[in-house]
Amino acid sequence: MKLTSLKNEHVKFWLSLKEKKNRDKEQKFLIEGDHLINEAQKQNLILETISIVDLNADYFVTKDIMTKISDQKSICYNAAVCNFIKEEELNGNILILDNIQDPGNLGTIIRSCTAFNFHNIVLSDDSVDIYNSKVIRATEGMLFHINILRRNLLNFIPTLKMLGYQIIGTDVVKGLDIRTINNDQNIAIVLGNEGSGISKSVKNLCDTFVNIKINENCESLNVGVAASILMYEVNNE
Amino acid sequence: MKLTSLKNEHVKFWLSLKEKKNRDKEQKFLIEGDHLINEAQKQNLILETISIVDLNADYFVTKDIMTKISDQKSICYNAAVCNFIKEEELNGNILILDNIQDPGNLGTIIRSCTAFNFHNIVLSDDSVDIYNSKVIRATEGMLFHINILRRNLLNFIPTLKMLGYQIIGTDVVKGLDIRTINNDQNIAIVLGNEGSGISKSVKNLCDTFVNIKINENCESLNVGVAASILMYEVNNE
Repeated sequence: MKLTSLKNEHVKFWLSLKEKKNRDKEQKFLIEGDHLINEAQKQNLILETISIVDLNADYFVTKDIMTKISDQKSICYNAAVCNFIKEEELNGNILILDNIQDPGNLGTIIRSCTAFNFHNIVLSDDSVDIYNSKVIRATEGMLFHINILRRNLLNFIPTLKMLGYQIIGTDVVKGLDIRTINNDQNIAIVLGNEGSGISKSVKNLCDTFVNIKINENCESLNVGVAASILMYEVNNE
Repeated sequence: MKLTSLKNEHVKFWLSLKEKKNRDKEQKFLIEGDHLINEAQKQNLILETISIVDLNADYFVTKDIMTKISDQKSICYNAAVCNFIKEEELNGNILILDNIQDPGNLGTIIRSCTAFNFHNIVLSDDSVDIYNSKVIRATEGMLFHINILRRNLLNFIPTLKMLGYQIIGTDVVKGLDIRTINNDQNIAIVLGNEGSGISKSVKNLCDTFVNIKINENCESLNVGVAASILMYEVNNE
């Protein structure tokens, strides 16, 4: 279908997906660029394709329309509407993120999860949305390789414990050096908010704490870096 | 001095520092927030202070003025003009960044340099400016602990070699596992652009290459994460 008007119902629908509440209602999200579209295709998540160059796309649109739906500085030729990624059963190590707010940090962490074989992320309810366009871009297409759940952590962490997970909090001051942790049991590593760290009530649910040895002049690492180094170490055990 | 007009010469000067060319000309930059101001004070870099709450500041300004000079979403009470940080002599391990573009990545890397005792960064001429406000914010005050040089890498890397540095490139595909590198000699680790990696001409100057072992489904790590893990490993040797 060829679309030229910005006021078309389809265009309005795509634009509505820029907001979390609409994505949640529709259980759909937008992606841009060939790399992401290829990755989404492999997982059978694509519902409809939108293009300014491909006449075979579901919607062949004007540059004006693409510019409007795009969140990137330089225009993409292709975009697509995807269904939300289905949750899978938990299997193996888990990263728990308590109130992560920066989209770039979450995207980077998702990318590192793929790299270091942490196939599950459990996000607190108040964390940034994984379908936020900045998160998706920062994952560099890795979004589709990770099983991501959004949960109330105070309810969910006890369930993980019953499943045999060791809940490992992170703390800049207290805690064991991550290199001393052994990986015999399934591990769930908890990282907290960029400014305030792990919330008190979630801290209370942790079995043990680890840290990364850093120079005393440095107060803390970026949360994406900290998460990545912890997963790197556990993966290297 | 009390300032109320947005058209005041001082305000115009502060606003001009938002642009790299003006910062370079004046050899000065702006910072916001008490944490950064404290860190800059320790290094005697502060030239003048600007405040909406402190009558003893050099310039007591209106909220309108502060909003205008600020780059943050929520207004800071205090800001300051600083002199550029002086270069020091190279001493110990070096991180070389070839055409790094993302301010958040550079800020994160500077923070990790402090954490993992890499006290020197050599930035290529075409990298993002360290006095960019987003870079400064992402360093979380760690900017003042690191010796940062901006150089033409093609001229500078040969000098480093003469000083006895081992030049270690990073490469996703080829290269030794970073854990096999020994730290007997002074090390300079090179990381490249977010999209295209290290430029060919800089690659040709590297003595050896390392990588970080990652799952094959993951093409690469975020450059801030990669730099941090490499420094973490060298620091742990």
